[in-house]
Amino acid sequence: MVEQLAFNQLAPRSNRGGPIRDFMWKNPVPTVDVIIEKDDKIVIIRRKNEPKGLALPGGFVNEGEILEERAIIEAKEETSLDVELKELLGVYSDPKRDPRLHTITPVFIGKPVGGHVKGGDDAADAFWMNIDEIKSHEFAFDHKKILMDYLKWRKQKGTYWSTK
Amino acid sequence: MVEQLAFNQLAPRSNRGGPIRDFMWKNPVPTVDVIIEKDDKIVIIRRKNEPKGLALPGGFVNEGEILEERAIIEAKEETSLDVELKELLGVYSDPKRDPRLHTITPVFIGKPVGGHVKGGDDAADAFWMNIDEIKSHEFAFDHKKILMDYLKWRKQKGTYWSTK
Repeated sequence: MVEQLAFNQLAPRSNRGGPIRDFMWKNPVPTVDVIIEKDDKIVIIRRKNEPKGLALPGGFVNEGEILEERAIIEAKEETSLDVELKELLGVYSDPKRDPRLHTITPVFIGKPVGGHVKGGDDAADAFWMNIDEIKSHEFAFDHKKILMDYLKWRKQKGTYWSTK
Repeated sequence: MVEQLAFNQLAPRSNRGGPIRDFMWKNPVPTVDVIIEKDDKIVIIRRKNEPKGLALPGGFVNEGEILEERAIIEAKEETSLDVELKELLGVYSDPKRDPRLHTITPVFIGKPVGGHVKGGDDAADAFWMNIDEIKSHEFAFDHKKILMDYLKWRKQKGTYWSTK
């Protein structure tokens, strides 16, 4: 039904910039985040832009880009680490997860394969955090929920999403 | 970098429909697909609309919707089955995976919990296919790749994506 509705809704709006644009306006925006892990530590960034606070490295996916390649680019830009992706933790799509707009974010788990942690680009800072410390911190977006799911994943694997 | 670039690019376009719309125009569009399994069979649909052919049930995600809820709605509309989601198989984002536009699709694995298979909405037909038959069929989009990953998942679990 969505498919038909979405295309049907194009007609009255086609004078405002073309049908494709209006069609896409109805959709959430894809982003991607990465949990970089090594032993009992993960990489956390401190965001330079709003919403500020601690968060996982990640960012918006551009049209024409492959998700996993954008994940590696964002990890490098924000943490200075070369990262190899290992697994997908889950996909998070709660419309309230980002105060700016509705985003859908797949979250990868990866490992560092080069470089040293240093904040860059949208990250004012980047550092290793012991997983025992996760519970005692607040995080931007729904990254606390994502990280609590990650702690479950370390014990029992599985895949996760916003309402699970 | 994406985040900053994307917002910076808004200004010159703001006379063409508002910044948010132009911002989103740069992003792939999220869809969601579901592999409904029972024993050694999965549900396949025959698409009513272009691109025609065999495919997994699924569809576009609307702004404001939670991904997993849209997955359950699409499964019901296209196969008449009530579905419970069990795991996430992966996320597929190859820009060429859909001939119409760049889509990103998380793929859930679910089980039927009610109803009988019957095509509806965008599905001209829906039916159970034995997993042994997957290899001998062609599918729309990148659904053959997704289904080959699903066959791996049945043997060794794990999570999958376009370039893995």
